[in-house]
Amino acid sequence: MSSSKCSGNQFKAPLYEAMVAHQAKNPVSLHVPGHKSGQGLLDEGASFLGNVMSIDYTEITGLDDLHHAEGVIMEAERLAAACFGAEETHFLIGGSTVGNLAMILAVCEKDNVILVQRNVHKSVIHGLSLAGARAVFIAPSIDPVSGIATSVSIEAVKQALKQYPEARALFLTNPNYYGMGVTLAPFAELMHAQGKMLLVDEAHGAHYGFHPELPASALSQGADAVVQSTHKMLTAMTMGAMLHLQGPRINRSAVRRVLGMLQSSSPSYPIMASLDLARKRMHTEGGRWLTEGIALVKEFRSLLDEMNRFHYFPREFPLHSSQGYETADPFKVSIVDDTDALTATELKERLEAQDIYAEMTDGRHVLFVFTPASSRADVLRVAGALANICLDVPAQKKELQEPISNILKLPYYTQISSPIAFDMREISRGERTEEDFRKISVQDAIGQKSADMVIPYPPGIPYLYPGEVISATVAEALLQLASNGIKFQGTEFGQTHKLKVYT
Amino acid sequence: MSSSKCSGNQFKAPLYEAMVAHQAKNPVSLHVPGHKSGQGLLDEGASFLGNVMSIDYTEITGLDDLHHAEGVIMEAERLAAACFGAEETHFLIGGSTVGNLAMILAVCEKDNVILVQRNVHKSVIHGLSLAGARAVFIAPSIDPVSGIATSVSIEAVKQALKQYPEARALFLTNPNYYGMGVTLAPFAELMHAQGKMLLVDEAHGAHYGFHPELPASALSQGADAVVQSTHKMLTAMTMGAMLHLQGPRINRSAVRRVLGMLQSSSPSYPIMASLDLARKRMHTEGGRWLTEGIALVKEFRSLLDEMNRFHYFPREFPLHSSQGYETADPFKVSIVDDTDALTATELKERLEAQDIYAEMTDGRHVLFVFTPASSRADVLRVAGALANICLDVPAQKKELQEPISNILKLPYYTQISSPIAFDMREISRGERTEEDFRKISVQDAIGQKSADMVIPYPPGIPYLYPGEVISATVAEALLQLASNGIKFQGTEFGQTHKLKVYT
Repeated sequence: MSSSKCSGNQFKAPLYEAMVAHQAKNPVSLHVPGHKSGQGLLDEGASFLGNVMSIDYTEITGLDDLHHAEGVIMEAERLAAACFGAEETHFLIGGSTVGNLAMILAVCEKDNVILVQRNVHKSVIHGLSLAGARAVFIAPSIDPVSGIATSVSIEAVKQALKQYPEARALFLTNPNYYGMGVTLAPFAELMHAQGKMLLVDEAHGAHYGFHPELPASALSQGADAVVQSTHKMLTAMTMGAMLHLQGPRINRSAVRRVLGMLQSSSPSYPIMASLDLARKRMHTEGGRWLTEGIALVKEFRSLLDEMNRFHYFPREFPLHSSQGYETADPFKVSIVDDTDALTATELKERLEAQDIYAEMTDGRHVLFVFTPASSRADVLRVAGALANICLDVPAQKKELQEPISNILKLPYYTQISSPIAFDMREISRGERTEEDFRKISVQDAIGQKSADMVIPYPPGIPYLYPGEVISATVAEALLQLASNGIKFQGTEFGQTHKLKVYT
Repeated sequence: MSSSKCSGNQFKAPLYEAMVAHQAKNPVSLHVPGHKSGQGLLDEGASFLGNVMSIDYTEITGLDDLHHAEGVIMEAERLAAACFGAEETHFLIGGSTVGNLAMILAVCEKDNVILVQRNVHKSVIHGLSLAGARAVFIAPSIDPVSGIATSVSIEAVKQALKQYPEARALFLTNPNYYGMGVTLAPFAELMHAQGKMLLVDEAHGAHYGFHPELPASALSQGADAVVQSTHKMLTAMTMGAMLHLQGPRINRSAVRRVLGMLQSSSPSYPIMASLDLARKRMHTEGGRWLTEGIALVKEFRSLLDEMNRFHYFPREFPLHSSQGYETADPFKVSIVDDTDALTATELKERLEAQDIYAEMTDGRHVLFVFTPASSRADVLRVAGALANICLDVPAQKKELQEPISNILKLPYYTQISSPIAFDMREISRGERTEEDFRKISVQDAIGQKSADMVIPYPPGIPYLYPGEVISATVAEALLQLASNGIKFQGTEFGQTHKLKVYT
């Protein structure tokens, strides 16, 4: 990805190597942390935490300072920038959460308008609340096969820009949790043509762009700021992530200032070191490693096919057939028992009974997350466990109910919302009191502002954000969803058919 | 500390034990993190990160969810609450930084007034900026011996409450970095008598209250909310901290909501487990362990005395003689070469040349941080290294210059500031442009609002915060400090004798 720029000596891991060199001195610690290189552990803790605590350092001579990087941390971040194709990269020790907060806070002042894909991670909503920004939500497309919300269309963004030319940026999540995504270049071109920014939550795509069978990275397609969870699809420790910046539009000093406010003043050196090592491995042997990993997941898919029992997606990558999405991550496999013998929850539990732990279930699919670090032994154990389940639970061929198709027949939620103001300062004293809202019937609620976040599940996308005006279309959709037995999160609507609205 | 309430089975570490039990199943990970229990590490990383990655988990069945704790994390937090004497305790995986941000954001809405000790950690200022709060800064006392800023006086707080009865709370940092502190009970009583809160940054005092020779904890003295860096003086991994709540005044649902916004949605399980283990060890054998640790530091002090070369503090604990502070942490030892043969920086460097790493130097003192995890071997190595330095660098008996006494002769900074508005939203677009401020002479700046944070060093406390009105007293003090060769952070004042003010 960085072939065009000098990528430095990617065979080095400057931060990790400096920590190991310091440890090799057998130094006396008269500084924090208090465990004193693990001396404070008893045997039970030492077995799992002893080694990491022996390099759990702080800002001492030679180990630089994340918040004013000018030594080994700066070197490590520059190597990461070159590797991932950014102009400036910041190590995050608070996960993609802090990266999303920082992107929003650096771009939005109070009451600024920003275009936001409706199905975003809650940290994006939290960023809007901290900034006091106003979000124009754009409805995502729905994959007709799985019923899963994917990405927004370029046409919807064009329409939103016509309606809200004051919007400062477009915020997209790509790929989604299931590895479904779109080509981002047209979105970047559209926004840049108007001098606006494209911000991308690429938490699930830290490995993108490193292999021909993987989708291109957001940076390579022109995004101005990109957050990646290096811990999710690559090999950093949990909470290890990166915020990548490029181009003239994003205010880098604002990003640095916000990161300095939100990230710990005693950042974890082991997590930062794991980012350094993850970058080194990706850059120096990522291609070969990903080839092996993709081959393993293909083997797993062929084993699934042989069982002739489970439906799964994606079935092909790169994608050729047109669906609700344009790109797919080969390392994500979402499976469904094609007969209705086992619900997703039952399938997940039967796997756990064999010590196999999936990422999650959405009520219909069980999501498996493979990475290049998955072993062939893992693949064979999972296939074996699924084969056992096929034997234990005979397939049934009763007609499969299709709640998804019902959902798709419904009038859908607002395609482009009016600007919705978020401001956590107004709720920081705590829950609103009963006087602040009323519970009324859906019909009466039309035209009022929702006091609830209303999330039908599936597909799990908020139909209503707090403060969003309830349209007749949405009211109708909610009633039909309820009559289809869809569950609702964040509201009693499912039971009462009433909505909370602000008075 | 929790003798009055049921403290649960403190011999258990429910979170850590659940993680170890899960690991013992040799499970297959089809979930994040991508390193797959460390399988993604190469040899170089495996030696230090392999064991911890084997328990670097996420929210899978049986391991609960920090943001909706109802299983082993809830158990671990309840055991911690009982151990430290709180009614509700939250594990922090973003250090005391996120705890300070959360306390301010949960208590202050925009434009609310809060009384704040002037010498606070920058995270407190960041919290004020995120909340859009207005701070009334109260000047700390200065220890006449060391020249170090300690705590505020109860009289100053009473005066501030008279002037600003609308203040919602008092924010104190206790103890300071050097382990100097005050008795907090009178502050708690004063605030509670007016229905107001006492918030305490006890980052350096997680061990307080566990031994008769240690100061009492902030919770035991009535503080409504307390942040402790469990990683600093106890044995958690770096970034492992706790936010303790008690009493009816602090809005707990607001605290939970803010923590849910600021902390990673993929919190680090090893860091949380290290909090669980640190609590267990403290509760089950903390007394004996602290007795041994305090004896070791006493031995170190007697070895220092024998060298007849270094001045250090504290010299006695519990404190008897009245000074600029009332309590001292025996585990902190700040030393000075009593002759002027070695500056603090030179002393620190000569120790590092012998692989001994101090916490920091303030230009006059070198701060050593011991903890119960420090070993006798550590103590003897440090004493031996100091003895070597005594031999290598003969003592000089030239008259010791006293910059401190000069500082103390100065008119001091504003005792009680007017309310200073902080709002990061106003600076989120980045640096202000040249039009936003002027650089003018100190004399001309009197009565204007500073655009700089002006920090003379030592003692390292802001004389002026951005937005603070420049008084004649402060202008005079700054000039005299400059003429005494004191350095200034965050401003060019030291070189130019000019201040940035808003136009």
